Amino acid sequence: MNKIYCVGVGPGDPELLTLKAHKLIRNASQIAYFRKRNSTGRARKTIEKTLQKKKVYEYPMEYPLTTEVDFQTDEYKKTLDDFYIKCCAEIKFLLEKDDLIIISEGDPLFYGSFVHLYEKLKKDTPVIFVPGITAMSGSWTNAKIPIAMGDASISIIMGIQDEKDIIKSLKSSQTAVIMKIGTHLKKVASALKKTNNFNRAIIVEKATMIDEKIIPLKNYNEKRAPYFSIILIPYETQK
Amino acid sequence: MNKIYCVGVGPGDPELLTLKAHKLIRNASQIAYFRKRNSTGRARKTIEKTLQKKKVYEYPMEYPLTTEVDFQTDEYKKTLDDFYIKCCAEIKFLLEKDDLIIISEGDPLFYGSFVHLYEKLKKDTPVIFVPGITAMSGSWTNAKIPIAMGDASISIIMGIQDEKDIIKSLKSSQTAVIMKIGTHLKKVASALKKTNNFNRAIIVEKATMIDEKIIPLKNYNEKRAPYFSIILIPYETQK
Repeated sequence: MNKIYCVGVGPGDPELLTLKAHKLIRNASQIAYFRKRNSTGRARKTIEKTLQKKKVYEYPMEYPLTTEVDFQTDEYKKTLDDFYIKCCAEIKFLLEKDDLIIISEGDPLFYGSFVHLYEKLKKDTPVIFVPGITAMSGSWTNAKIPIAMGDASISIIMGIQDEKDIIKSLKSSQTAVIMKIGTHLKKVASALKKTNNFNRAIIVEKATMIDEKIIPLKNYNEKRAPYFSIILIPYETQK
Repeated sequence: MNKIYCVGVGPGDPELLTLKAHKLIRNASQIAYFRKRNSTGRARKTIEKTLQKKKVYEYPMEYPLTTEVDFQTDEYKKTLDDFYIKCCAEIKFLLEKDDLIIISEGDPLFYGSFVHLYEKLKKDTPVIFVPGITAMSGSWTNAKIPIAMGDASISIIMGIQDEKDIIKSLKSSQTAVIMKIGTHLKKVASALKKTNNFNRAIIVEKATMIDEKIIPLKNYNEKRAPYFSIILIPYETQK
């Protein structure tokens, strides 16, 4: 029976693919990936050189709506669910011919979109996951920030959360990673100030990509940050 | 000026090295790595096939004491600090000849030991980091557990922490990863029970290695777990 391989391709630098991912993608006869309308998709862009000129059938799963905002309406949920059902049907059709490689930016099981399909497919379809370097790891690597050492705990926080929940998470750990900043920059900065973390915070835009930016948050003069930017609270020996 | 490349080699499966790490290690004339006394060292073991028969100078940095327990005594700290100073001197000596590749299990800036040396070296020595797949990512990948989706936050907790701090972290997030379980199994299990997380917890021993084990915690009958085992609290749609 043919299998799905859901393969993490890392944060953007093609050299950060694993050997396993590279081999699977190089040998693929068909691949699939999520992307926003009218875009190449970040995962697809990352493997441009890996695919080279080889003939591969590509199935882009194009979101019917933007996913940057988490709408809570029933209509939005229904539209997305219909989309996922349609993707699953097409995937099963493709699996009749050969294995299918689904490429996923970062690490598939760490906030990856394929999980929505996995929940529907796993009963009767074999799925193998291959981990990838996360964007947060790409961020702390290029910023040369030890995110944690020894017995320190880390909170991984989403920018959309309420300020009081962000503060609660920041207080429960020694260091933190705050993801999906976007329009939440002001609120996140406020939570960081209230917990004495603002002055040491670093913001990273587009980790490991050509246009990567690494800036101390106190010197960051934007009103909002790109959706995929990440704020890091470095580990401090004295805290 | 010659450089240090501190390269993550991932959780144990040699196929999980990144292309970048693979290339750097293959082309290395000299490598260094931490290891416990009388052991090969996990990072070194992972790159056995990568090195093949090539002649490479190896500098094993052998811990004078076990690092599995975080002793708080001054004597312990002094012994370790002397050890790090000795390592730095040897590294600087090696750098006079060529670049040095320091291999690190997992991801170097995520609880990696090289950071102790980096703090001493960074003033006058160029250091480049290469990220690696973490053991926690290897764990949730092979256990096929979506660790987080959408707006869920994650706590990364160390087993050595007090039960009340573990509970605080568990309550501040939707999902969690608990690392370095070892002798702390009973305390961690108690914290998981008190926060209603015990029944869905999964324990992973030796993620991605040949003798990997993935067991629901409620079926795990050991009195203590290996030091490097990891407990995962999977994401739940309804919580």
